[in-house]
Amino acid sequence: MRRWELTIEIDPAREQPLFLQLAAAITDGIRCGRLKPGEALPGSRELADFLDINRNTVVAAYGELTAEGLVTSRIGGGTFVAQPQPVAPPGPRALASVTPTYPLPPVALPPLSRTIPAPGTLQLRGSPDVRLLPARELARAFRRAIGIQGRNVLTCTDPRGHVRLRTQLAAMLQSTRGLQATADDVLITRSIEQGLDLVARTLIAPGDAVAIEALGYPPARRVMELAGAHLLPVPVDQDGLDVDALETTLKREPVRAVLLTPHHQFPTTVVMSPARRARLATLALQHRFAIVEDDYDHEFHYDGKPVLPIAAGVARANVVYVGSLANILAPGLCTAFVSAPPTVMERLVALRGTSDAQGDAAVECAVAELFEDGECLRHVRRMRRLYRIRRDALTTALVRHLGGAVDFRVPEGGLALWVRVDDGIDIEAWSQTALQEGVSFSPARPFDFLDRGQPFMRLGFSYHDPAELDDAARRMSRALARVRTARSSPGTATARSAVRREGMERIDAGATPSLPLARQSPHRVR
Amino acid sequence: MRRWELTIEIDPAREQPLFLQLAAAITDGIRCGRLKPGEALPGSRELADFLDINRNTVVAAYGELTAEGLVTSRIGGGTFVAQPQPVAPPGPRALASVTPTYPLPPVALPPLSRTIPAPGTLQLRGSPDVRLLPARELARAFRRAIGIQGRNVLTCTDPRGHVRLRTQLAAMLQSTRGLQATADDVLITRSIEQGLDLVARTLIAPGDAVAIEALGYPPARRVMELAGAHLLPVPVDQDGLDVDALETTLKREPVRAVLLTPHHQFPTTVVMSPARRARLATLALQHRFAIVEDDYDHEFHYDGKPVLPIAAGVARANVVYVGSLANILAPGLCTAFVSAPPTVMERLVALRGTSDAQGDAAVECAVAELFEDGECLRHVRRMRRLYRIRRDALTTALVRHLGGAVDFRVPEGGLALWVRVDDGIDIEAWSQTALQEGVSFSPARPFDFLDRGQPFMRLGFSYHDPAELDDAARRMSRALARVRTARSSPGTATARSAVRREGMERIDAGATPSLPLARQSPHRVR
Repeated sequence: MRRWELTIEIDPAREQPLFLQLAAAITDGIRCGRLKPGEALPGSRELADFLDINRNTVVAAYGELTAEGLVTSRIGGGTFVAQPQPVAPPGPRALASVTPTYPLPPVALPPLSRTIPAPGTLQLRGSPDVRLLPARELARAFRRAIGIQGRNVLTCTDPRGHVRLRTQLAAMLQSTRGLQATADDVLITRSIEQGLDLVARTLIAPGDAVAIEALGYPPARRVMELAGAHLLPVPVDQDGLDVDALETTLKREPVRAVLLTPHHQFPTTVVMSPARRARLATLALQHRFAIVEDDYDHEFHYDGKPVLPIAAGVARANVVYVGSLANILAPGLCTAFVSAPPTVMERLVALRGTSDAQGDAAVECAVAELFEDGECLRHVRRMRRLYRIRRDALTTALVRHLGGAVDFRVPEGGLALWVRVDDGIDIEAWSQTALQEGVSFSPARPFDFLDRGQPFMRLGFSYHDPAELDDAARRMSRALARVRTARSSPGTATARSAVRREGMERIDAGATPSLPLARQSPHRVR
Repeated sequence: MRRWELTIEIDPAREQPLFLQLAAAITDGIRCGRLKPGEALPGSRELADFLDINRNTVVAAYGELTAEGLVTSRIGGGTFVAQPQPVAPPGPRALASVTPTYPLPPVALPPLSRTIPAPGTLQLRGSPDVRLLPARELARAFRRAIGIQGRNVLTCTDPRGHVRLRTQLAAMLQSTRGLQATADDVLITRSIEQGLDLVARTLIAPGDAVAIEALGYPPARRVMELAGAHLLPVPVDQDGLDVDALETTLKREPVRAVLLTPHHQFPTTVVMSPARRARLATLALQHRFAIVEDDYDHEFHYDGKPVLPIAAGVARANVVYVGSLANILAPGLCTAFVSAPPTVMERLVALRGTSDAQGDAAVECAVAELFEDGECLRHVRRMRRLYRIRRDALTTALVRHLGGAVDFRVPEGGLALWVRVDDGIDIEAWSQTALQEGVSFSPARPFDFLDRGQPFMRLGFSYHDPAELDDAARRMSRALARVRTARSSPGTATARSAVRREGMERIDAGATPSLPLARQSPHRVR
């Protein structure tokens, strides 16, 4: 049993399930080097006896570690600490030296640079904790969808998606978001990105001006650009998109569409004020532009009055409403949807049918079943409760471990905190060092249309439980200390600048119209 | 038991499973009006006893009928003939009268007109018979994919698709198609249409000339047009794309890409001759154009030598290869893929990541498992054997029921026959009347770039078993008789013109360059 007794602390009273506590303890052992690559872990029965827990708990923990790539099982039995893998296994590509002889058009998009955090890294990402997904129910529903009714489902060729899910989505939009919609008013898309791409290609002609939030979701503005849009960034402050600034822009030039995230502004999570929503709706009708309302995480609102989408208001005719189930279920089950008036819908459907035929009706029906039997909405309620707890947990952890270096408001909703960082801190260096400490988070730069290194970061709290979040903040603090030491070591000291506490008055003042798109790679983890 | 004994003939010796024979017999009863809407079917036990078959067979048949919408089950038991549903339930749309006030760009695509055949219609479509899908294995694999390894899978954010399936696809391309490819040379797409759309948006700049087959798959040419391509139709004959005609075009103007289906030309299913493939490859390198090779149903080749893709030859650097699993598995599981050299792949991946984030990793892993344990390739072998039998069955049925009116070659591969129709026959009227007789098929018009009513039709044989195919041909014959009667009734007679048997010498001579895209709606069922 060796040194196991020293490091494993598990506590049935914590929110985190026992198997995850056990997995976390072993992960820690591996990360700190107490457990070496190739070393054998105790047998599940042996460890279960020792810790006085159920053997299945150990099996589940080992399964989790296997899934994370931290341990491997060998044929003939035994679980071993995995050999570290190169993050991107290089492997010779069969076509490595093959180059086309034909000319390619100018590059339209920067290459995707994906940083895959090392296994076991705590990720402060605003995506759902899929460990909590009702996986058994979903698998059962999938089996039923392709089972006896299979021919009906698997040959469904409706480019709008299967009517069962469209019916459920329409009902959800009506009941929880006040949106008038029937099944025929809903187009199911593969992802919110596909929805936005279809919308951009449908609404925008080359050269059209599109106003966007100066801080926003890079793929959303990129699909507008790909459709030929001329982008006009509009500042965002703590009441959301600055509608006065938009109005100034409208006086200068006609705008075809305004793309925004009014509910929990991405990435800042601020809620757009009712007065601004009303004003934006009026402007849309008056200046005849479309509002593309990206409501990517509607469900996760914790405090204050529920806020209805702009699409539920007077400007409905001019709103194209885009939503997603990715944050309810999982990024890998990224069913999303668009709702728009019939004239727009007809074009969206024709484009969808041409550019991607139809959806995955089996998955659509499986998800529909989760709605039909109430499981999906129960899951949403569970998640909302848990994510609220996690928001508060991350808040507490940041104050405890990083109190002097960061400043933020507790958001009413969303899956992340938008955190101002002390001016003296090199946030890019911090995030790089943090990766070495086993925690990942996102500086503001990729979200900024002007690609400036602003002193903000987005810290998602939904992906991890409170214990993990506390650990993440602790690691961030360790990383920060290392960055400060590195900085102060050549000179004398005082890397630590004064604590600032003005709050987030003005996140972004970048109203310079129509600058070329920033260079950095798309950041895809919301 | 009433009139049941009169109509149900089931025979364990037939290829068709008993439950489908039973379902077909009941379908026939409903279609002919012997069974009226609302009428009760016998209980499963009662009918099983009467026919001396297993009760599960009856339950499965009723399940099939339920799936087709022909019968309904009521709470408290009992199975009843369904009330006929309007084909497209009209239902008031919530947004019916809502019209945006903003201007929309010029229409880029015709609206999709989807004809959904009435329940029970025999469909001569070239799509897979999903009744034969290994559904249980797939459901089990899906459950495993989202189970213990769920977090790993469900948060996979690789826009290229999950590495497990990419690895399997690369191995398949190497072993069965002679294509050099590793996992990194493969991009998984949602559908072959999405693959083609990504390719078009990557390779084509507005105004670029793209040569296409004058008879082809409408969505494929439409995505080229959406990317701004100027389309140049090239004739197709029984050796595939007419490369001499292409060469003439190349002398007149530079071409950026050639889009074609060399393996089983769509819709004609002809195999491009080796000499023409070689010539096309040489031209591509010499004239520096891309070959977009759409190999949508590679597996289904029955006679003669196996033919390797153009991508397996000397022009690999200039080929972007597009394939699909939709015809192996199901249209609703339309996983497809693209393989191209790294410089092109990098752009495809950036576009995919921006316009659709990532794939459905759970389904990708489930399909990967079917490959890993050999189930997928076993399924392909089974299907190839069955589809060959079905090809021959449709051939026999056409000769038997329509001998004097149609003419065709038996194709070496593919999932459909390309059939020449007697000159005196109004093929559009025939296909409309056929729907009333309970059989659907596709005249050539939607595939023709020039939108001409050519005397050809495409009859898929993969979707139904031999007994159903025979029935389909019989119904076509009845429909033809009705069309002829209708035509001859006003005048004297002789609607039946002489039988022609010259074979398919020249399917299409439409080499007129760059005509505007035809008006008809996309035809999406291959």
